[in-house]
Amino acid sequence: MKLFTSVNDVTDLSGLVKEALHFKQNPFAHKELGKNKTLGLIFLNPSLRTRLSTQKAALNLGMEVIVMNIDKEGWALETRDGVIMNGTTVEHIREAAGVMGEYFDILGIRSFPGLQNREEDYSEDILNKFIKFSGLPLVSLESGTRHPLQSLTDLITITEHAPQGRRPKVVLTWAPHVKALPQAVPNSFAEWMCKADVDFTITHPAGYELDTQFTQGATITYNQEEALQDADFIYVKNWSSYQDYGKVITTDPNWMLTRDQLGVTNQAKVMHCLPVRRDLELGADILDSTDSLVIKEAGNRVWAAQVVLKRMLEANIKQADERRFTGS
Amino acid sequence: MKLFTSVNDVTDLSGLVKEALHFKQNPFAHKELGKNKTLGLIFLNPSLRTRLSTQKAALNLGMEVIVMNIDKEGWALETRDGVIMNGTTVEHIREAAGVMGEYFDILGIRSFPGLQNREEDYSEDILNKFIKFSGLPLVSLESGTRHPLQSLTDLITITEHAPQGRRPKVVLTWAPHVKALPQAVPNSFAEWMCKADVDFTITHPAGYELDTQFTQGATITYNQEEALQDADFIYVKNWSSYQDYGKVITTDPNWMLTRDQLGVTNQAKVMHCLPVRRDLELGADILDSTDSLVIKEAGNRVWAAQVVLKRMLEANIKQADERRFTGS
Amino acid sequence: MKLFTSVNDVTDLSGLVKEALHFKQNPFAHKELGKNKTLGLIFLNPSLRTRLSTQKAALNLGMEVIVMNIDKEGWALETRDGVIMNGTTVEHIREAAGVMGEYFDILGIRSFPGLQNREEDYSEDILNKFIKFSGLPLVSLESGTRHPLQSLTDLITITEHAPQGRRPKVVLTWAPHVKALPQAVPNSFAEWMCKADVDFTITHPAGYELDTQFTQGATITYNQEEALQDADFIYVKNWSSYQDYGKVITTDPNWMLTRDQLGVTNQAKVMHCLPVRRDLELGADILDSTDSLVIKEAGNRVWAAQVVLKRMLEANIKQADERRFTGS
Repeated sequence: MKLFTSVNDVTDLSGLVKEALHFKQNPFAHKELGKNKTLGLIFLNPSLRTRLSTQKAALNLGMEVIVMNIDKEGWALETRDGVIMNGTTVEHIREAAGVMGEYFDILGIRSFPGLQNREEDYSEDILNKFIKFSGLPLVSLESGTRHPLQSLTDLITITEHAPQGRRPKVVLTWAPHVKALPQAVPNSFAEWMCKADVDFTITHPAGYELDTQFTQGATITYNQEEALQDADFIYVKNWSSYQDYGKVITTDPNWMLTRDQLGVTNQAKVMHCLPVRRDLELGADILDSTDSLVIKEAGNRVWAAQVVLKRMLEANIKQADERRFTGS
Repeated sequence: MKLFTSVNDVTDLSGLVKEALHFKQNPFAHKELGKNKTLGLIFLNPSLRTRLSTQKAALNLGMEVIVMNIDKEGWALETRDGVIMNGTTVEHIREAAGVMGEYFDILGIRSFPGLQNREEDYSEDILNKFIKFSGLPLVSLESGTRHPLQSLTDLITITEHAPQGRRPKVVLTWAPHVKALPQAVPNSFAEWMCKADVDFTITHPAGYELDTQFTQGATITYNQEEALQDADFIYVKNWSSYQDYGKVITTDPNWMLTRDQLGVTNQAKVMHCLPVRRDLELGADILDSTDSLVIKEAGNRVWAAQVVLKRMLEANIKQADERRFTGS
Repeated sequence: MKLFTSVNDVTDLSGLVKEALHFKQNPFAHKELGKNKTLGLIFLNPSLRTRLSTQKAALNLGMEVIVMNIDKEGWALETRDGVIMNGTTVEHIREAAGVMGEYFDILGIRSFPGLQNREEDYSEDILNKFIKFSGLPLVSLESGTRHPLQSLTDLITITEHAPQGRRPKVVLTWAPHVKALPQAVPNSFAEWMCKADVDFTITHPAGYELDTQFTQGATITYNQEEALQDADFIYVKNWSSYQDYGKVITTDPNWMLTRDQLGVTNQAKVMHCLPVRRDLELGADILDSTDSLVIKEAGNRVWAAQVVLKRMLEANIKQADERRFTGS
């Protein structure tokens, strides 16, 4: 594995999940693999779980980790080509990424979308430039359109708690919020669920339709109650509009999931990528009950990151071996 | 040891000091103990000594350390229960602490008091919620009412420099400052000194009385000169009022200790937890002389942190062994 | 080596470069040397390459690294002596440096000049106080007047790419910029080139003369085209005026190097310390061509830092051995 930016970078979804769960039982099984290898974690936006879990995963593999909040510890990066840099940006992404390519063995990058210009955000220009100009194996720590480490984590968590002997029903439900949030988590969750062995439904108010490239195969409905029927897992998340890009169309509090709605489900477990705003996005009654998986889910972020880093380290070693044998 | 939040978490004060001094001679004596164990150091407020010394102590024990300034690198935490989170706080402490419980083996937390609401600060609500919701062994890096790593350091430093064959006289003296500072350091120093084998006096202007729960057994006087008489150690520190909570009652410069006041002492050594404002809190003439212990004292922060972390690691191993033998 | 703050701390320039290039082939050759040694990297100003490359170099040597952006994670330091600290500075450099002396084995410090007061900046007061009060081996991560790790890197890069059998011609050319930048990089580059086995020319508009203490032996001209004639290496850099201290005298775009100017050179390679503002300081046509060495140059920062740290660790061990044999 050279890149981990979307589900399309994974060839064996269930094998990846299985290996992650193996790490959960044996965190230090491959401690030698990362020896003398450095992971750079570069954040253009804040992070709690992603930063801590990926750092932990790398340490479990024996890697060195260098974390940098480039927006706060460094300076503003220019991402556009062909501009005269006489404004506030101090360094171009071409140089910044190129330099990182000299220092790290694997690069992790977080860069949120601006939510102003859909075409720009959905082009994944920043992520792609980090890939191109660093030349490194790269793991997305959330980009303009996706959050693949979160989605792999979610699939791991669903696999762990799935009912025996049948496909689970998984529902992604939109939730209210006071701010305009990216579509990266729901996009990503949707594209992973569409490829996983689950029955997948998405529900949201009109105007919150996701880009259809992520939702092929999903059942989509505006009726939340209908969607929740017989659900095994409910994934709660706010997002801003894709069509009326970056806008908050409604904040209707009726869309906030509470415990009394779980009656129609199949004793559904409730998930959320966190951070979650209590009693705005999701009822505290659920979060404080055993119906909630959110803490265990966050814990699984470590194993998702660890299996991805492990495969990148292995691919690297394989490449190096091939270079050695062919003399190139 | 599962918690280190006050002197009450210590059963053998002199044994703890002795072991810390042993580490000072043999910093890497237990380098294997922390293997594959991760310490999370979470700061809700700035830090220099605490951050650096605790990180160093953990590295000496072979631990991995993950530092996060959550206020700067993450986002604002909600600490109150039962609120609808539609304001500026992004994540609830219940989730944030719960998630940390998934990633770390030991948690260190710094959270200063707001100095607006005494009841709230003295309830130690934030510290207690981190303990409860993380479920981890937790070391306070300074909380609303106490700074136990500093106080253990101070006792180590006093033990090192104490006169032979008699109980030392230790004086805590209030000092002027332009800002309103917490009572955590003086509270904590007082409660440690009251349990240590020293003769302990506190002196401050009227209105700066500390909460009596911390000062049982101390001699308390408004007369600084009288207090300094025959002192072996003088601990200089500013704090704001406990009674008129968080207020600066006086900034009388006569309370600033200078070298000419040391004449009445027993060649007293002068201590301060740092940072210290020169010639406002404490005379530069003292800080630049051999009367001052402040740098050596700060150095001892490493051994205080190391002995605490060591005991937590040992307790953890013991628990794991017990679980293994009982099959639970 | 106890200090690395200028070229004057180096006795064998070519030996140092040779050893650095050896590390480039064998990054982990001395992984045991830094065991149980801690490098503190303290930044009073932002950093990307210096932070990442020095951290990487120390990890290659098996050291522990503690990074602190003291301006952001800590508080403002007072650097003047004899002031009553009743303003906004929270801690004096005397204490801050003294405390670091207790925690680290080697200290790295970055502190930019204020560009307001030439005498103050050129006294290197802050750097000297960190040296004096920490008592540690200290490596400058860029100070008021110099950036020696960058200059060593530059010499390494020039050595790697130099023509066989003759002294290379190296040209330092001033470049336009919208902000007032320090003279540290050009000062430092000049004093290293003046000591290296190269033919060295400096070119800049009138009014941008560097302090002559750094330029002894260099050819200096206001005529850029003349300077570029037969150049093997062109080092592009903006700086503000030394004479009219900290001022921007001109921003004449004709001074920006572009590819069509390279015709008169000896197929010159173009260097820059980065960050570089594209099409303001230096033409994107050069940066995106094979004429540019800037990424490889930045990569060499690791080996420069590693050879310096290695020599400091060795000096430390030697000192410790001598103390052991003499019983002192």
